Amino acid sequence: MVKKVLKFGGTSVGSIERIQHVANIIKKEHESGSKIIAVVSAMSGRTNELIKLSQEVSKDFDKRELDVLLSSGEQVTCALLSGALKDLNLKAKSWLNWQIPILTEGDHNNSRIINVNVDRINNFLNSGVAVIPGFQGISKNGEITTLGRGGSDATAVALAKLFNADSCEIYTDVDGVYSTDPKKIPVAKKIDKISYDEMLELSSLGAKVMQSSAVQTAMMYNIPLEVRSTFTDRKGSKIFDQQNIDYSKSVTGVAYSKDDAKITLIGVQDKPGVAADVFEPLNKSQINVDMVIQNVSSDEKTTDITFTIKRNDLMKTLQILQENGKIKYKSITQNDKVSKVSIVGAGMVSTPGVTYKMFRGLAEEKINILAISTSEIKLSVIIDENSTLNAVKKLHTIFDLD
Amino acid sequence: MVKKVLKFGGTSVGSIERIQHVANIIKKEHESGSKIIAVVSAMSGRTNELIKLSQEVSKDFDKRELDVLLSSGEQVTCALLSGALKDLNLKAKSWLNWQIPILTEGDHNNSRIINVNVDRINNFLNSGVAVIPGFQGISKNGEITTLGRGGSDATAVALAKLFNADSCEIYTDVDGVYSTDPKKIPVAKKIDKISYDEMLELSSLGAKVMQSSAVQTAMMYNIPLEVRSTFTDRKGSKIFDQQNIDYSKSVTGVAYSKDDAKITLIGVQDKPGVAADVFEPLNKSQINVDMVIQNVSSDEKTTDITFTIKRNDLMKTLQILQENGKIKYKSITQNDKVSKVSIVGAGMVSTPGVTYKMFRGLAEEKINILAISTSEIKLSVIIDENSTLNAVKKLHTIFDLD
Repeated sequence: MVKKVLKFGGTSVGSIERIQHVANIIKKEHESGSKIIAVVSAMSGRTNELIKLSQEVSKDFDKRELDVLLSSGEQVTCALLSGALKDLNLKAKSWLNWQIPILTEGDHNNSRIINVNVDRINNFLNSGVAVIPGFQGISKNGEITTLGRGGSDATAVALAKLFNADSCEIYTDVDGVYSTDPKKIPVAKKIDKISYDEMLELSSLGAKVMQSSAVQTAMMYNIPLEVRSTFTDRKGSKIFDQQNIDYSKSVTGVAYSKDDAKITLIGVQDKPGVAADVFEPLNKSQINVDMVIQNVSSDEKTTDITFTIKRNDLMKTLQILQENGKIKYKSITQNDKVSKVSIVGAGMVSTPGVTYKMFRGLAEEKINILAISTSEIKLSVIIDENSTLNAVKKLHTIFDLD
Repeated sequence: MVKKVLKFGGTSVGSIERIQHVANIIKKEHESGSKIIAVVSAMSGRTNELIKLSQEVSKDFDKRELDVLLSSGEQVTCALLSGALKDLNLKAKSWLNWQIPILTEGDHNNSRIINVNVDRINNFLNSGVAVIPGFQGISKNGEITTLGRGGSDATAVALAKLFNADSCEIYTDVDGVYSTDPKKIPVAKKIDKISYDEMLELSSLGAKVMQSSAVQTAMMYNIPLEVRSTFTDRKGSKIFDQQNIDYSKSVTGVAYSKDDAKITLIGVQDKPGVAADVFEPLNKSQINVDMVIQNVSSDEKTTDITFTIKRNDLMKTLQILQENGKIKYKSITQNDKVSKVSIVGAGMVSTPGVTYKMFRGLAEEKINILAISTSEIKLSVIIDENSTLNAVKKLHTIFDLD
């Protein structure tokens, strides 16, 4: 018998009607002979509602109690979905984090699943559907922990691994992974098959279909994923190992994000260790530096260092740089009106000229490139924020994705 | 050090502002040197909201999953209150049903607390405030169970007993127990001290201040209770053993309920066992029969049996009677426009003439008595529903309660 983990996100269980619809999807899968573990998120909006309540209580709400608070959201969905399944005459049962248990390690609000007791649930799966809350677990001290936002994907993948499931299907409000944002670029196309790496680049770059760390875990354990819509019967996108994919195109998708900011340190002393002196304090303050570019300055004894960070880290970063006694520079410039546009494709590495094609395309649109970074399957540029959609459209067209 | 259980009902924790207010009450008590166990209900309205969701899923929602669903309500309050206490720089921690654990027995939706592991919490109380969800526990099989509506009072009393607390204070939206309903009868007066028995009669008769079974438990273990308002500093009502109360008045309060119905079986054969034949099937269908009156009929071989039940059991009761092959009677009459008015007072038993005084008072108001029932500390009459307030006012006056 095939064993499947089916994960239903917040919008998929956002109302009683939708929960009943999800129950019907599960029933169909169950009747076709699969053993089903259903992982559910909180009903859409509920997690934000609870966070808002906590913030009204305190600007610095206790992290332990936040986990107790938030975990109630998935508990509600679990109970309602199990009730809906029983109403369809299916054997079903909700299993809470501590009843299984789902063991985690790490900090409150940011833990990782390390183990799950599978025996009792495996027994139950012989006849019934197990409904399990995503996003949460308990620590070895018996404290409720959560995995951070989007953590229900991580639960689904971890359970797929620990239960040795045949597949892990992520039901959501889009019907798959697209070549770019279909809401903004109507010619965006659904991708039928995509590799973990590509998916990873796409999801971390702003195509918000699945949580990155969940994709990473799936890649690590080679768990086949499928992203599909709860609301249509259309086929979804399959995500698996690169070897299983036949690349006819060099570029699989175009992603963009609009929450970046760029900082340039002008006239930094050009001597060994200077970059470390710049970035070490940022790292200590948990500021994530994305791209770094270092150029020789006109003055040969100094250099300019440009780097990008998340936009809402900008003020903190500037403050840290200004208070940093170790580094000497002439001036700082900043720009928080920038965006990052990336082309992603596992086929890129074997296709010459992709880089050139991208730069020429942007030049044709008179879009100035402020910074560039590359990896084996990705090419990102920082550009003026106002040119974002223009750039995405142009790249989507020239790489034959329309 | 004094150890106190403080219970806060739904309206007391109905908003963030109120939760913060409750945190301040607890802080004050804690700083005055008491060890505090706080028992909380779900935020007002939340339990009904969850029940509504479950009913939208299924008219016959699974009882096990209902407990999983409903228990989330108190979990939310626990987390928010603990966070609010920490925001006031108090050490505090939420303890969920399974973390303690609170062990229960009995059916889902209707269980009883049988034990609580007190050691870890007792240690914690030396420095911090324990916040505990009311209304719930876990069974010995590790399933979440709830105690039925109003069960947070039961949790508070059970914890007061098991933790050997010095007092149990029920914070609510009224500032105590009144001689009758203050919303309808403005001359109603707060009762400073009342015995368990009286409170029991008052609460089961419709003065909805505290859940009856919680008062019963308190009486059984002689746990002093205090009902007081979350919203004012005024003194509440103390509930304890009869011996501690000095009775200057024969009647302590006047209660009424408007959800009764009266049924009369006319011309029932007057032979042994007939009452059992009438009431046994009702009992089997869990219909609660309240008062029973049996009179000799004009025809000496038959009798009339009158009894009262809850109004929403009327149709079911009539059906059971009509289908009952064992009993023979001439006809059935029914009246669902009746109410029950009761005077309650532990001093009644030692005061002659209370009964006579009550009947004369009602007669003066031209109120017809349809049925009477008495106990040591209570005297109830069934009257026409429209005369309810008139009767309550009159009795309140003639027994010097205004």
